[in-house]
Amino acid sequence: MSDKRVYLYDSTLRDGAQTQGVDFSATDKAAIAQSLDLLGIDYIEGGWPGANPTDDAFFGNPPTLHRAKLAAFGMTRRAGRSADNDPGLAPVVSSGADVITLVGKSWDFQCTVALGVDLDENLRMIGDSIRHATTKAKEVIYDAEHFFDGYKGNPDYALKCLKAAHDNGARWVVLCDTNGGTLPDEVERIVAAVTKVVPGSHVGIHCHNDTENAVANSLAAVRAGARQIQGTLNGLGERCGNANLISLIPSLVLKMGYETGLSASDMTRLTQVSRELDERLNRAPLRNAAYVGEAAFAHKGGLHVSAVEKDPKCYEHIAPELVGNHRKILVSDQAGRSNFVARFREIGLDIDPKDPRIAGMMDEVKQREFSGYSYDGAEASFELLARSYLGEVPEYYRLSSFRVIDERRWNARGDLITLSEATVKVSLRDATQMAVAEGNGPVNALDAALRKVLLPVYPELQDLKLVDYKVRILTPEAATAAVTRVLIESADRRGNTWTTVGVSGNVIDASYNALRDAIVYKLFRDGASV
Amino acid sequence: MSDKRVYLYDSTLRDGAQTQGVDFSATDKAAIAQSLDLLGIDYIEGGWPGANPTDDAFFGNPPTLHRAKLAAFGMTRRAGRSADNDPGLAPVVSSGADVITLVGKSWDFQCTVALGVDLDENLRMIGDSIRHATTKAKEVIYDAEHFFDGYKGNPDYALKCLKAAHDNGARWVVLCDTNGGTLPDEVERIVAAVTKVVPGSHVGIHCHNDTENAVANSLAAVRAGARQIQGTLNGLGERCGNANLISLIPSLVLKMGYETGLSASDMTRLTQVSRELDERLNRAPLRNAAYVGEAAFAHKGGLHVSAVEKDPKCYEHIAPELVGNHRKILVSDQAGRSNFVARFREIGLDIDPKDPRIAGMMDEVKQREFSGYSYDGAEASFELLARSYLGEVPEYYRLSSFRVIDERRWNARGDLITLSEATVKVSLRDATQMAVAEGNGPVNALDAALRKVLLPVYPELQDLKLVDYKVRILTPEAATAAVTRVLIESADRRGNTWTTVGVSGNVIDASYNALRDAIVYKLFRDGASV
Repeated sequence: MSDKRVYLYDSTLRDGAQTQGVDFSATDKAAIAQSLDLLGIDYIEGGWPGANPTDDAFFGNPPTLHRAKLAAFGMTRRAGRSADNDPGLAPVVSSGADVITLVGKSWDFQCTVALGVDLDENLRMIGDSIRHATTKAKEVIYDAEHFFDGYKGNPDYALKCLKAAHDNGARWVVLCDTNGGTLPDEVERIVAAVTKVVPGSHVGIHCHNDTENAVANSLAAVRAGARQIQGTLNGLGERCGNANLISLIPSLVLKMGYETGLSASDMTRLTQVSRELDERLNRAPLRNAAYVGEAAFAHKGGLHVSAVEKDPKCYEHIAPELVGNHRKILVSDQAGRSNFVARFREIGLDIDPKDPRIAGMMDEVKQREFSGYSYDGAEASFELLARSYLGEVPEYYRLSSFRVIDERRWNARGDLITLSEATVKVSLRDATQMAVAEGNGPVNALDAALRKVLLPVYPELQDLKLVDYKVRILTPEAATAAVTRVLIESADRRGNTWTTVGVSGNVIDASYNALRDAIVYKLFRDGASV
Repeated sequence: MSDKRVYLYDSTLRDGAQTQGVDFSATDKAAIAQSLDLLGIDYIEGGWPGANPTDDAFFGNPPTLHRAKLAAFGMTRRAGRSADNDPGLAPVVSSGADVITLVGKSWDFQCTVALGVDLDENLRMIGDSIRHATTKAKEVIYDAEHFFDGYKGNPDYALKCLKAAHDNGARWVVLCDTNGGTLPDEVERIVAAVTKVVPGSHVGIHCHNDTENAVANSLAAVRAGARQIQGTLNGLGERCGNANLISLIPSLVLKMGYETGLSASDMTRLTQVSRELDERLNRAPLRNAAYVGEAAFAHKGGLHVSAVEKDPKCYEHIAPELVGNHRKILVSDQAGRSNFVARFREIGLDIDPKDPRIAGMMDEVKQREFSGYSYDGAEASFELLARSYLGEVPEYYRLSSFRVIDERRWNARGDLITLSEATVKVSLRDATQMAVAEGNGPVNALDAALRKVLLPVYPELQDLKLVDYKVRILTPEAATAAVTRVLIESADRRGNTWTTVGVSGNVIDASYNALRDAIVYKLFRDGASV
C-alpha cells in the first residue's frame, strides 16, 4: 500500500449524533451509512451497542455495505473488572461489527480527577480491553481520549497508553483532541513525536472544531505521518462539531496528493452527499460551506466575473465540477453586462450577448434594485423577471384584489387569540373567482385563499411548500415610510428549492409579490398549461 | 512595540459586504464601525469611496472612532495614467480616511490574462499609486491580490511587487490568498520567504475560507512572522467567507500569547459583537461557532457533565467567560442561576443572589425561551419581564382587542394600492377607548392606532420611533404551523435605542407583543405616571 494512502473514518452516526438538535432514527442511520459506503469512506462508525435502543436496533439489523467496514464504538473495561466480564464491553464486542473502536484515557489528570483510577490500572484497562476485542473482531482501534492535553501534561504516560493499545493488537491508535483546543502547529509536533513510538501507518487523528481549526489540525496530523482521519459529514458533532470530512477530503486529494478510498468519480458526489445530510436533518445547507456550499464558487463583482470568464483560475481555486459543485454568477447592482449574460446562460436562457433586449433588461433590473429589490438571494425571481421580459412566462392568473383581516380578541373559552382571514378575487381562464381562507398570519391566510382558487386548475401546486419567510426593513431611517423586502423560500417534494423576493412599502404587499413569484415559478418550471 | 503585537484589520464593511444576501446601508456601516472600535480592532476598512452611493455616504459622514483607524479601500492606478490623474484613485485618496489601502496585482498570469498589462508597468502602477497615496493619508497599505498563487507561479515577480509597494512608503504589504485555495503549510513557508524581503513587522495576511482553513492560514502567517491579520466578523465575505476574526482573536491571545488592541475586558465582548452582527443581518447565529456559539460550551449530559463539574478543563479548552460566552448544561439547569444574577446586575436590577423569587423568574424565562423567545438580542423585553415579575412595572394600558385589515385594490386613479387599517380597543385610566388608523402595513397601522389612544395620556410617546422590524421563522420545518419571532428596535431623540421581542404562531400577534414591550419600556424608562 502506498505511503500516500489515508484512511477515512466517519463518525457522523456516533459523535455526530451528539449534536444538539440531532436525533437519528435507526432508519436514518442505515441510510446515511449506505450513502457513506457509496461515497468510498473506509470506516463507518455506527454507534455504541448497548448505549441506547437506536444503536441496538441499528447493529441488530446492520445495513449491507459494499466497500466500507462497519465499526462499533465502546469504552475500555472498568477498573477492577476483567475485560471478558464487563457489562459495558460485552454488547460492543459481540455486536458482530467488523471493527471495534474502544475509547480510553491517556491523560493522567483525567484518570485521577474524572475517573479516580490508578495510572497503572488504566494501562491494564487499555491493554486487556484491546486484546479481548481482537478475539471478537477483524480489526480493533484505540481512541485515545484527551490525547493532546495528556501529552502536554505528561508525554511519557500519554505515549505509554498508546503503546499499551498498540502492543496488544490495536490496528490503529487514534489521537483525540477531545476538548478541541489544540492548534495545528502543536498537533503537527505531537503527532511527529508519536510516530517515533507507533508507526504513522498505525496512527489516526480525531479533531474537534472549538477553535475553527479541526480541518487544519487533521491535515497537519497527516503531514506529520498519521494515516487515518476521523471526522463527520458537514462537521456534525457536539459543541462546535468534529472535523468536516466534506471539507478535508478535497484538500487531501486534490491539493496534497494523498489517496483515499474515493475515486475521482466518487469525489464528484461530495456536494450531493453533503446536501442530502442537511435534507435529512431538515436544515438549510450552509451557503458558504467550503467546496460544496451554494456560494463556494459564486462571483459577484463585475471585474471578477469578466476575469473568471477569461480564465476561471483567476478567481477559482479548483474546478467546481471536481467536487460536484458549479459556478454561480450573482446579479447585483455592481453587475456589468458580462454578469448578466453569464447569469442568463446559467439559468438556461439562450440569448445572443449582443441582443439589444439585454440593455432593456439590465435597466429593468437596476431600476428594481434601486427600489429595494435584491436578486442576489432570489434567483427564481430573477429568472422570472428575465423570462417575462422576453415574453416567455404566461399569465397563469390575475389577482384583482385581496383583503386580509387580522383580529385579536377573546374567544368563547376565554383565551386571547389572533385570527387571520384572507379574501382573494382572481381572474382565471376568463372567469372571476373569489375564495376566503384562514391562516396563522396574514401571509399564510393569503396563501391558503390563493390555493383554494388555483389548485383545481393547477394541481401542480399541491407539491409547493413554503419553507422560510424573512422580512427586512430596508430604510430604517425612514421609520414608518420604510420599504420592506420579503424573501420566501419554497420547496417541492423532489427536493428543489427556490427563493423569491417581494418589495413594497407595505409588508403584506411585499409578501404577496414574493408569494406570487413562488407560485408562478413552480407553474413555469412544471410547464403548467394556462 | 513588542514583537508579540499583532494588528487586526477588519474588512466586514468592504469584503464582508460582498457576501451573498448582505446589503449594508450607510447606517448599518456606521453602527458596525462603532462596535468594532469599541471592541479594540486596530483598522476598520469602511468601503471603497467612489464605487457606490452607500460607500460615498459613509465616507461623507464617517462615524467618530476613538481607538481604531478608518481605512478607505481602492485600486492602484490604471495602466498608462498618472496616479494623480486617475479617476478611480481620486475619490479614494481624497476620502479623508486615516489609512488608504490599495489593491494591486502580484501574479504575472493575472497581469497578462485578466488585465493585459505589461509586467514592468504593473510594478510602476503599484509604486506610483502607493507614493501618491502617502501624500494624502497617514498610513498606506498595499493589498497584494493573488499573492500566494503569484508566488507559486513566479516568486521573483511576486516579491518585486511587494518591494515596489514597500520601497514607495507602504506601511504594510498584505498577502492576499484571493482564491482561498492555499493550505496552512504553504502559507507558513511563503510568508517566511517574504519576511526575508520585507520585515515581518510590515507584513499582513488576508485569507479566504474556501478550504475551511482561513483561521489556520492566518495563524500560520503570524507564526511565520506576519504582524497584521485581515478578516471579518463571523467570517463574512464572498464565496466561503474571509478569515473569521471572532474565532482567531481568542486563539491568538489566549493560546499563542500574542497581543492585540483588545484588553482582557474587551475580549469578553466577543460573543456579544458576533451576535449583534447576526441580529443586524437578520440571521440566526451559528450555534456551533467556535468560542462564541451557543453550543460552544454546551455539555450534553452524563459523564461529560459530571466531569465538567469536577473540573471544567476536563471538557473545556478555555473558560467560556474569557470570551463572554457561558457554559450550558443541556440536561441540568443548575448552572443557570449565577448567569441570571449576572444578567440582572447588567440591567441595573439590584437583587440579592439568594432572593427566592429568582427561581420563579428563571422558570418564567425558561418557559418563554422554550416557546421561542430569545432575550439575547432583546434586553428591553428581558428587563421588562424581570421587573414585571418583581411588580415594578405598572399597567399603563390594557388592550381588549384589535383588528387589522389589509386591502389590495385599484384606487380611483387606476393605480394598484395596498392599504392597511387598524382598529384598537384599549382600557386606559378606567375608560375604554377605540381608535382607528391607517398605516403602510399592518404593524404600522396598529402602532398608529395605539398612539392615537395613548398619546393624549402619555405625551412621552411623541418621542418614540420604531427604527427596525425583523421577522424570523423559528420552525421552518413546521411550514404553515411555524412559530414566528419578531424583533423591534426603537429609538428616542436622545439617541437611546432598545430592542424588544414578540413570539407567536401569528406574525401579527408576535408583532403586537414586541410593539407593546417597546411602548411599555419607553414609558417605564421615562417614569410615566399611570
